[in-house]
Amino acid sequence: MTMPERLPTFDDVLQAMKRIAGVVHHTPVMTSRLLNEISGAELFFKCENFQRVGAFKFRGASNAVMSLPQSQLQKGVATHSSGNHAAALALAAQLRGTSAYIVMPETSPAVKVAAVRDYGARITFCKPTLKAREETLQQVVEKTGAVFIHPYNNPDVIAGQGTAALELLEQVGELDVVLAPVGGGGLMSGTAITVRAMRPSTLPIGAEPANADDAYRSLKAGRIIPPENPNTIADGLRTALGPLTFAILSEKLERIFTVKEETIVRAMRLIWERMKIIVEPSAAVPFAAVLENRPFFEGKRVGIILSGGNVDLEKLPWST
Amino acid sequence: MTMPERLPTFDDVLQAMKRIAGVVHHTPVMTSRLLNEISGAELFFKCENFQRVGAFKFRGASNAVMSLPQSQLQKGVATHSSGNHAAALALAAQLRGTSAYIVMPETSPAVKVAAVRDYGARITFCKPTLKAREETLQQVVEKTGAVFIHPYNNPDVIAGQGTAALELLEQVGELDVVLAPVGGGGLMSGTAITVRAMRPSTLPIGAEPANADDAYRSLKAGRIIPPENPNTIADGLRTALGPLTFAILSEKLERIFTVKEETIVRAMRLIWERMKIIVEPSAAVPFAAVLENRPFFEGKRVGIILSGGNVDLEKLPWST
Repeated sequence: MTMPERLPTFDDVLQAMKRIAGVVHHTPVMTSRLLNEISGAELFFKCENFQRVGAFKFRGASNAVMSLPQSQLQKGVATHSSGNHAAALALAAQLRGTSAYIVMPETSPAVKVAAVRDYGARITFCKPTLKAREETLQQVVEKTGAVFIHPYNNPDVIAGQGTAALELLEQVGELDVVLAPVGGGGLMSGTAITVRAMRPSTLPIGAEPANADDAYRSLKAGRIIPPENPNTIADGLRTALGPLTFAILSEKLERIFTVKEETIVRAMRLIWERMKIIVEPSAAVPFAAVLENRPFFEGKRVGIILSGGNVDLEKLPWST
Repeated sequence: MTMPERLPTFDDVLQAMKRIAGVVHHTPVMTSRLLNEISGAELFFKCENFQRVGAFKFRGASNAVMSLPQSQLQKGVATHSSGNHAAALALAAQLRGTSAYIVMPETSPAVKVAAVRDYGARITFCKPTLKAREETLQQVVEKTGAVFIHPYNNPDVIAGQGTAALELLEQVGELDVVLAPVGGGGLMSGTAITVRAMRPSTLPIGAEPANADDAYRSLKAGRIIPPENPNTIADGLRTALGPLTFAILSEKLERIFTVKEETIVRAMRLIWERMKIIVEPSAAVPFAAVLENRPFFEGKRVGIILSGGNVDLEKLPWST
């Protein structure tokens, strides 16, 4: 993973919005009287769980694919992922009529493998270690000439993720805070770039599980500290920052709140029960931060990016 | 239960819309590319699961309460119900500053009792039989002077329920069919009145569990046939038609499709997984009818009223 030559800017987000407007869903912003009452804040939920493939990841993946020159596009795109980025890249490639090569751990749930396959991607399985994933990807790229699209340490991906905040700020009036979850930092980076440029008085703030607080510790230490055995229900947030997202967040992010596992489950369940929408655990982390920090958020107008809704309905965290 | 002097008309629905516009949510209409592909039809889901108290019932209850003259309103309103109508009437009464007296079976789930109590209603418990419910309600009404608001055999309730279809038809273009579930028939009656008046070329069609097909059999026989031990997961649809809803549906309804239990579960799960929204089993019954009758619906533009989203998250029908 090397440092790209440039950091993405708000202009890149605007370009991304033009590029992907025809393929991404313009997702709704929902409000909830009951959750406002519970939290004491006025909350505006940007519903990326309703995005195509069920997560914001489709914004970044489609922007990255659509930014490639035709000569590079022909040989396809590749990544390693067992999660939302794999499905997002597969669909983005399919829509552009090119190939997606996805390296997935052989332990991936069948339902995720099926989703990626349904979008026409070619899957290569590997052992479930980061080393095996990276080595297998390297082989696939050498063999096919496909372009590696990193899930977050890629300026086009970050610019694409920033379009969620762009839409949110256009959909609602002034906000005091915009909250997003922090995993690898792609969504948070795009969000921070957009919020700082569009609304200088609005604070971009991250939320992270205390059990996977590597971004919080990295920003505090001034260097990337990888997570150690991150044990959190928010499986989308177990990744480390990359050089690019670390650089952007160091410059743009106001702060990070870390939250307890039990608050994540409570937040997720409140969103399901009161708003009647399905969000994955990672998506509930920002609302968990609101619940844990009432004095900070009380009376504020808070935008929350609900990052996704892909969850195993057979294994819910409150089931006994 | 006696026959009211008049049947509600489309004009009553229009009056209801004016009356309740300030208190009900104008719910969104959602579409799903994936469910369109699966069904072969173009589907427009009217999301009453996002309505206040989580179900369309709040439309009828608030219209009934707001239609009462001040002299009657003062003594409060009453009903017997363990379901959505109880919560809906409790909230409607609270918003008008009057009392709601709710008779609930002593076997009601604690979560439902808590919801009704949270809206400030006074609860009287009774044995879990229809006879005990009716007798207890009679005592409450005699003691308090409260006005009994029947959950569906009431023209103001029916007119209120019709506002969901009114909004739907205003939100989308021409439709070939509007589908709603049939339990006591209040939602279906209001829907049929509205659709027949606003769009003469659009067919109002009902959907009912085969295991609780009393409305289907009643309309065929030309007389009300009560359900016999209705054994369906769609717990909101176990009730019999009333004289009023029977009269309206006999005149206005195009037909009823009955569906299997396994299709209801499949339809519910598809809505959860693909649309990322929470609907209760009763709300999935119309989409189940689309899945079971592809030749009828293929290529058609179909409005579906998703009746509610109140479901016990601890007991999902696909959990083992």
